[in-house]
Formats: sequence, structure tokens, C-alpha cells
Amino acid sequence: MTLTPEQQSEIDAQRASGTTTLRATAPGMEQHLYTAIPVLDHGFIRVIDYMGDDAAITQAARVSYGKGTKAVSNDEGLIRYLMRHWHSTPFEMCEIKLHVKLPVFVARQWIRHRTANVNEYSARYSILDREFYIPAPEHLAAQSVVNNQGRGEALSGEEADRVLRYLRDDAMRAYDHYEEMISDVGQQGLARELARMNLPANIYTQWYWKVDLHNLLHFLRLRADAHAQYEIRVYAEALCEVVRDWVPFAYKAFEDYRMGGATLSSGALECVRRMLKGEEVTQENSGMSKGEWREFMGVIEG
Amino acid sequence: MTLTPEQQSEIDAQRASGTTTLRATAPGMEQHLYTAIPVLDHGFIRVIDYMGDDAAITQAARVSYGKGTKAVSNDEGLIRYLMRHWHSTPFEMCEIKLHVKLPVFVARQWIRHRTANVNEYSARYSILDREFYIPAPEHLAAQSVVNNQGRGEALSGEEADRVLRYLRDDAMRAYDHYEEMISDVGQQGLARELARMNLPANIYTQWYWKVDLHNLLHFLRLRADAHAQYEIRVYAEALCEVVRDWVPFAYKAFEDYRMGGATLSSGALECVRRMLKGEEVTQENSGMSKGEWREFMGVIEG
Amino acid sequence: MTLTPEQQSEIDAQRASGTTTLRATAPGMEQHLYTAIPVLDHGFIRVIDYMGDDAAITQAARVSYGKGTKAVSNDEGLIRYLMRHWHSTPFEMCEIKLHVKLPVFVARQWIRHRTANVNEYSARYSILDREFYIPAPEHLAAQSVVNNQGRGEALSGEEADRVLRYLRDDAMRAYDHYEEMISDVGQQGLARELARMNLPANIYTQWYWKVDLHNLLHFLRLRADAHAQYEIRVYAEALCEVVRDWVPFAYKAFEDYRMGGATLSSGALECVRRMLKGEEVTQENSGMSKGEWREFMGVIEG
Amino acid sequence: MTLTPEQQSEIDAQRASGTTTLRATAPGMEQHLYTAIPVLDHGFIRVIDYMGDDAAITQAARVSYGKGTKAVSNDEGLIRYLMRHWHSTPFEMCEIKLHVKLPVFVARQWIRHRTANVNEYSARYSILDREFYIPAPEHLAAQSVVNNQGRGEALSGEEADRVLRYLRDDAMRAYDHYEEMISDVGQQGLARELARMNLPANIYTQWYWKVDLHNLLHFLRLRADAHAQYEIRVYAEALCEVVRDWVPFAYKAFEDYRMGGATLSSGALECVRRMLKGEEVTQENSGMSKGEWREFMGVIEG
Repeated sequence: MTLTPEQQSEIDAQRASGTTTLRATAPGMEQHLYTAIPVLDHGFIRVIDYMGDDAAITQAARVSYGKGTKAVSNDEGLIRYLMRHWHSTPFEMCEIKLHVKLPVFVARQWIRHRTANVNEYSARYSILDREFYIPAPEHLAAQSVVNNQGRGEALSGEEADRVLRYLRDDAMRAYDHYEEMISDVGQQGLARELARMNLPANIYTQWYWKVDLHNLLHFLRLRADAHAQYEIRVYAEALCEVVRDWVPFAYKAFEDYRMGGATLSSGALECVRRMLKGEEVTQENSGMSKGEWREFMGVIEG
Repeated sequence: MTLTPEQQSEIDAQRASGTTTLRATAPGMEQHLYTAIPVLDHGFIRVIDYMGDDAAITQAARVSYGKGTKAVSNDEGLIRYLMRHWHSTPFEMCEIKLHVKLPVFVARQWIRHRTANVNEYSARYSILDREFYIPAPEHLAAQSVVNNQGRGEALSGEEADRVLRYLRDDAMRAYDHYEEMISDVGQQGLARELARMNLPANIYTQWYWKVDLHNLLHFLRLRADAHAQYEIRVYAEALCEVVRDWVPFAYKAFEDYRMGGATLSSGALECVRRMLKGEEVTQENSGMSKGEWREFMGVIEG
Repeated sequence: MTLTPEQQSEIDAQRASGTTTLRATAPGMEQHLYTAIPVLDHGFIRVIDYMGDDAAITQAARVSYGKGTKAVSNDEGLIRYLMRHWHSTPFEMCEIKLHVKLPVFVARQWIRHRTANVNEYSARYSILDREFYIPAPEHLAAQSVVNNQGRGEALSGEEADRVLRYLRDDAMRAYDHYEEMISDVGQQGLARELARMNLPANIYTQWYWKVDLHNLLHFLRLRADAHAQYEIRVYAEALCEVVRDWVPFAYKAFEDYRMGGATLSSGALECVRRMLKGEEVTQENSGMSKGEWREFMGVIEG
Repeated sequence: MTLTPEQQSEIDAQRASGTTTLRATAPGMEQHLYTAIPVLDHGFIRVIDYMGDDAAITQAARVSYGKGTKAVSNDEGLIRYLMRHWHSTPFEMCEIKLHVKLPVFVARQWIRHRTANVNEYSARYSILDREFYIPAPEHLAAQSVVNNQGRGEALSGEEADRVLRYLRDDAMRAYDHYEEMISDVGQQGLARELARMNLPANIYTQWYWKVDLHNLLHFLRLRADAHAQYEIRVYAEALCEVVRDWVPFAYKAFEDYRMGGATLSSGALECVRRMLKGEEVTQENSGMSKGEWREFMGVIEG
């Protein structure tokens, strides 16, 4: 992560200036505010603002005049009930705003989640910084041989060296030419909106991203999953820690019912019932395809 | 407006309990928090939470590390520029959460604005209160004779009396029967989810409604407009005052460029240009239909 | 259901006028087009238009130049894979447009599904018809004694008679007064936008509703569920038949993985694993609450 | 534009296979279906499907049982009224599905329009083609000296040559390395999801994009505007022609009230009124900033 001294001092200034509010306040989030949580080699996540806490979820579910219940245990029970029964609207009553610095190819995956608000740094208007994501050696993975959309072991030896050299050299050369093309010293200077097209997808961009808790949890379910690409998963994992500190009851329910849970098809449920009656169920007599059966075994065997 | 002593004391308790926060705080909104602003005969708007202030808009537009600019004048200039050029995403970075009590027929118009989060009081689960909107005599308006979707003068005399009597008596009788049908004293008691169907559309409901500033301003442009139905317009007008206290620069820009502005068609602009050159332009030589010309005259003559 | 002869002849005219198109066409849907499928006592669903078929789902998933695969079995396999792994965007590539006539209290539940397009008949502009939903005796249910949000046995005897009488008489009286208030014979006539407030929630309204297949399936999962209120469930069930005729592969996958499937929490999965190893698991040693355990037993026992 | 013979023959096959439908059919769109409309050097737009026509807009606005009105003139008048008064929901009742091939930096602007459905070619799963956008000499523009977010004159001479050489050579080298890195000949082969990060933003991607007419017109208003970047504007302009052929009344109203119209602020309207009374209004006595006044003059002088 690279923060300039000016950026760090702006962050420090914001962390120094508390005021009094009557709004719901989450102590765990006050600790996070503004501070940059490092992700990848130059990226970060910063919590810029938040709205609501665990009690705000139950308060909305009850359309109540005051806070949530007096008894904290009731709040937790209700939150678990809401999560278990897919009542999503009370979770939409909490909101978070982040400042994220991330490689462009990660940003392109991230933006597919449409129910969020985004303001991205404009490369039409401004000049991008010379910062590129270069994978650490242990994350320089080979194409998976079993999954077209996955990765296998880390590359090694000379192949790894060559890949890293290509990534670094091509990025540096592309940026050198970017700078040279937009320069107005002794020439007209290419428009920024055109020059940016020379930059590769591992360059870093940044944006403000604002989302409600329901949609954030949906994002985390997909992107903190083991099948997500490593480079977005580390952002999702860092966010999981933030959410845990923000709304601990909701996060615990999310872990139990979403991240740690699994959806079984009608066929898979029927197999479980047969197994519990002592019947020997195999892929052949399960009615499932090989792919489904393998996934089912993964769930059943833990 | 009807708040029970318990409700009022819950509100008082929330207004008494300030804590320290590092988040952006809008002093004008802290004054509003939790307090019920009366609307119509039994309705209200209460601000439950908010995120951001004027500086948060420019901060997001710049994707900056610190607050908005030091110079307040710069923030205002940028906000006006963003509003004028329809840059909507920075305004989406502020959020507000309201508790609203409103008649069902108003709720049905309100909910058409889909880009918002809603939790409504459940009449499947709970029992509705005996509270109905009965128009004040000056708002008991006749059907407009020029506009199929509008209203004219207030009714008067015996007709007004009869209408008010119908509205009151039918509401009371419907509620008496609702109570009688759901009662489980000496009978099974009809399911609440069915009994509610007997209640007329002027009964009050309530909900938590959360929306970002961009979509709220869009709502206000349509619903605080002179052509909106009076009963939703008063909610929109009350909300306008809240927004003015929350983000004064953004609200001023909204007044200038949206509420007080007008969109002219290519044909209307051509007429303005001809008029400014001294030409006499009439409906006949304007190329506009009578309806368009009447609207155009309304804009040009102010 | 009540269609006037004029309405029926408009429908007949539309069914008589085929044209040639190069677009994807679903034979099962051509059969449904325009025809009113009756729901409840006066309601209906009519398919007005549709876009796409099963092949359009795989075509979009592959971003292909031509149709889906030649081999139909491949299309089905891919659709099942997409459904199983929650790849929602290919299902968004099909769209349906419906004309629905439904009681207002059902419309109020329905509209909570926000990711859809709606045009509702305007009671500000037009006069509503004298049509009210009156439950059939077998659906006149008592409040559930175990579930605050459900219903139990049907009412019987004198109680049922009285409830039906209240519902019918109150509706008729409210409508009589509605008509009398808006009449301009010998009086000014109350504005329609006000008079409608006297009408109860079992009056029928109608709308055009357009939605993509992914969001439609989400709607059906929640509203064709056994816990949904009967009066919206019958609409969902009628729609299920339509979808089955439209995209048979997608509907079959939906039945297997959504409607007939179940999501198990991490704790529930752990219990299944212990059971399969022969351990006796009870609510007490399961780590689940009584409510969760009851739901878990319902899933495991089928 | 580069279509392989296989792609072209798939397109030809689809254009050859008409079937009968009872749905609304737009003759102008049947002409466009599947055919690739070239945009930029390798890009295109293909209409894959559409729902509705001009009559479908008025049919939804009226919630009618049959088609739109018999008199075409009534349909057009109503469509113009709806457009003029910002009634957006009837326009949402038409839908279009496109296959678009476009450079990544254009795709990144395009995707900001969130109310649409997208399936993009996956560079995690598949290998991208060696196709890059290289601007034609007349579009190789210098940075604007008056507008931070715009472009000025075309580059010339040796500077132009150098820029084109950089763009071409860097793209080719990046792609050579991309191919070399993912190759599994004699090495493990880098994962595709990683190798793609080496590719610059002028590489072409493709997606299926589906949107309703209201949101499409909003997209066109912003992206067919003179201030939009040239490389996205040409896509928007090609789409304008498609929409004109699809819904001619709606497109004409869009041209008159949106593309050719202008929104004047309350201050600007006041200036127009003063001018029409013969007063001499200047920037100094207008109450407008210099920027606003310049824009206002642009509107008034045409």
C-alpha cells in the first residue's frame, strides 16, 4: 500500500475530529473509520461512513418508535430468524461507504454487483498513478487442469521468473508511453481519455463504493467464497472483518446460514433421507450427474 | 398526529443519548433526529438516521482522501456544477432513513419510487390502529373540469357535509367490523391477513424508508410539484425543509436547477430564439400543440 | 373473472393476428398470449409479451453469435449448472410482460418486488369498477394459533356467515358512496383522487407488470411457497404453469434447486454429518433453537 | 469489424428462419435482427431480440385490454405527452437485447448505467482475441486546453505517428506475452484469470446487454451527447438509428424533448423573461457564473 504523507495526514486529521451525534453508533466501526486496511501490493479498503448497527435491523423489522429491544438476546434471535427466512429488507436499513483502491481487472468483476453507488477516479479528467498489481510468487498460479475458470499450483522456476518479468516490464513500458503521450512539453499532448487505453488491466484505480448491508452480504457470499478469484477474495475477506466489527449479530447469522451453509436440491435432499434410513446411495442410483454428486459429497462430508 | 406517551418517551430517550462519532455530522439534521414532524391529520415524518453532508458529495466526486475542499465556496461551486450537468452519482453518496406514517393511498403512490429500501408495518402480523385520514374542509376538493387527473375548488355546503360524513362513517364501520372479525373472544377469529381487506385506503400505515439523496431529490421534484396530489405533496414539502437543513448547498442547487427550472423542447427553444429576435410567435406559427403552447407560455411568463 | 364482451373481442382480435418474426419464439407461450387465466373470483393473469426462450439463456451465457448449442441436452445441462451455481445474469436475458387483475391488498404485497416495471390503472384519472374479492368459504380462514403471520382452519357456521356479510356489505356500501361522491349530477362531485380513499383493500385493481426471468423466479420462490398468503400464492402458482410452458428446462431446474431444495445452515449440515455417522442427534445436542430444529426436521423428514 | 465466416454463417442462419408469432412486431427491427452494425475499427452492435413497439407504450399507459388506439395520431400524441411530462414507466414496457463488441475502456464507461442486464465474455474462462482499437488519425485528438474532460484538435505529424506506433506496438507486445504466458506447451501455463491483467484497455471485449426503452433513452441522452467521449458516442449514435426504426414516435419525441431540448435554471428563465421584455441582460447582471452564462448563451443562440 502506498499512501503519500499528504494522504496520511488527511486521514489523521479526520480521525482526530470527533463530534457528538444522536445517531446509532457502532463502536467497532468508529475504530475503522478512515484508516486504510492494506489489500494486495498497493490496494486498500477505507471505511468512510456507515449508517446503523445490529439494533437498527430489528428496529426496522418492527417499524418501531425507539431502538431495538431492551434485551440484546431478543435482537440476536430476531436477526437470526430474519436471516434464516430470507427477510432481506431489514438488512437493507444499514449502509456502508468505502474508499477502495484496486486493480482494474478486479474493479471490472466488482462492478457487476449493480445495486450499489459508485464514484470512480476519472482517467478522462485526471492522470493515473504508476501503480500496478504484480502477484506475489505464491499467487502466480497456473491454469487449473480440472476447472476452466480456476487456477492450480503456483508457477515455478524460470517460467515464474519470465511471467513476472513480462508483467513488470510491459506495465512499466506502457506507463512510460502513457506519460510521454500525454505530455504537453514540446508537443500537443494526447487527450487523457485516449492515452489511458494503453494501460494494462493490472493498473490500480480507486472509487467510493456505497452499499446496503443486504447487498454487501450478497457480495461477500459470492466473492469471499473459495471459488472466487484470489485477487477479489482478499478484498472480500478484509470486508468480512469490517462487517464483523460493525454488526456482530448479523455477521454471525451470515456465517451460519450463508457462508457456512449449503443449498441442497430436491434430489440431494431425497438422497440424504435415503442415507439416513440406512440405504446405500451412490452416484449411479442418486439421479445426480457426476458434477452434482461431487459437489454433494463435498457438502455431506464437510 | 397521535403519539402515545410511550412513543413520545421512546423518542425523548433517543434524543437524550448523544455519543461521539468520527463520521461526517450535519448539525441541521441532529436537530431533526427522531422528532416527529406532523403531516396531515395523523401522519408524520421522523428522521431516524442520515449519512453524509454537503462535503461528502464533493469528497466522492473527487474520490479524495480527506474531506471536501478547505474553501466552502469551492464545495458549493462544484455541487452546482454537478447538479447542472446531471452528474448524479456524487449525490447518491448521501443517504437518509425516515420513519413515515401515512394513509395507504399515499403509500401506494410513494412506493412507485422503487430505488429505495422499505420496511412497512405488517397487517398480516399485527393489528392496524383506528386512524384514518379525513380531509380538512378546505382540501375536500371537487374533480377538476379541465384536468382529468386533478382537483378543482373545495366542495361546499351540504355536499361537503355529506362527503365528510360518508368518509368518517364508512371508516368507523369498516374498523368496527375489522375488530369484530379478528376478535377471538367466543369465536375462532378471522386471520389478520384477511380481515385487513375490509379497511379503506385512508387508514394510516407506517414504514421505514431509506433512500439516497439523488433519488430523494428525484422524488421531491415529482411529489413537491404543483401537479402532485395534495396529500403526498405535503409530505414532500416537509421533506424539502429537512433536506434544506441537511445539505444546504445541494438543496439550493436543486431549487435553482430542478424545482425552479424548466425543460424546453427543441421547438420551444426555437420559439424563444425567434422571440428574442423580435418576431411575433403565436401558437399557430409555433409548431406546438395547444397543450404544449399553454405550458410554454406558463414557463415564459413565469 | 369478468371480461366484458368488448374486452373479450379485443383479446380475440389480438389472438387472430399472427405475423412473421425472426426472433426466438416459444411455442408454449404463443398458446398463452393475451388469453386471461382466471385467478380468485374476479382476477386474472394475461401474458402480453415475452422475450427469449431456454436457448436464449445459454446463448447469453456463452455470449455467442448464433443460437444456443445444437444439442438440446447441452442446453439443459448448462442451464442446470447455471441455476445450481447461482449464475443469475443469463436468466435475466429472458423477459415477460403480464396484464394482471388483482385485489389491492395483493397488489401491495406484490409491489415489494422492486426489480420490475409497473403501470397501474390510475384511480386518480379513472373510475374503478365495482369488483371486490370475497373469499370462498373454504378460504375464509381463522388466525393461526401457532404462527402470528399465518392462518388456520376455515371459519364455520354463524361466524363465517357474519364475516362474509360484513365483507360484502361494507364493500357495496363503500362503492355506493364512492359513486355518489364522484357523481357530478346536481353537485360539484368529489375529486377521484380523493374519493378512492373510501374503497376497501379487497377492491380489484390491474396493472401491466414486466420482469426478467431471474427476478420472476425469485418472486415465485417466495410467493408460490407454502408460507405465502393464499391470495397471492394462487397468482404465483398460475404463473408457474406459464413459466413451465415458456422455458421448460429453466423451470425444471428451478423446481429442483429452488422450490424443492432447502438451504441448510452450517449447524444443520454438521448435524446431518453426525447423523450419517450413526450418532443420535436431538434438539438438545444439536446447537439449534427449537424453531430451527423444527424446520430442520421438516427438511430431513421430507 | 471482423466476423469469421463461421460467425457470419450463424448470423445468416438466424436471419433465414422466420416463424409466426402473435406478439407485437416492429417491421423496422426485423430488418436489423442479428445483423452486425459496424462501429469503430473492430466493434459492432447486433440486435438480438426486442419486445414491444410504439403501440405497446400507449397500451401500457392505458392498462388496456387490446392494442393501442385505432388512430395512430392518438398514439403519437399520447407518447409525446408522456415524454414531455417525464412519465417514464410506459417506456419501460419496451425492451431490447443487444450483442455488442467494444473496447474495454468503452465498456467501463458503459457499465456505469446500472439498470440493465449484462453477460460479458469471460476472460477467466476463455481466451481473448487479438483485436485492439487503434484510433483513425482524425480521431487521435489532443487534450483540450479549455476542458479538463475533453479533447481538442487531432494530433499531427511526427507526434501522431509516434502515438500510433506506441499504441500498436504496446498492444501487440502485450498480446504476444499474454499468449506466451497462457501457453501450456512445455510449461505449466499461467491462469487465464491472471494473464488477462497484462492486456491494455483498448482490447475488444463483447457482451449481451439488455435494457428497457426508458433506460436506453437515458443512456442515449448522455452518450450521444456532444460532450460524450467519441468512442462511446459512435455506439450511441448507431443505437439511435436502431431506436428510430424500432419506435419512431417515441424516438421523435425523444429528439424533440430530450436531445434537442435544454433545461433552464430558475435564474436562466428569469433572464429570458427580462430579455423578452426588452431588457439588456449581461453576465454581470444575470446572477449567473461565467460558466453558466456561457452555457446559457449556447442554448439561447442555438
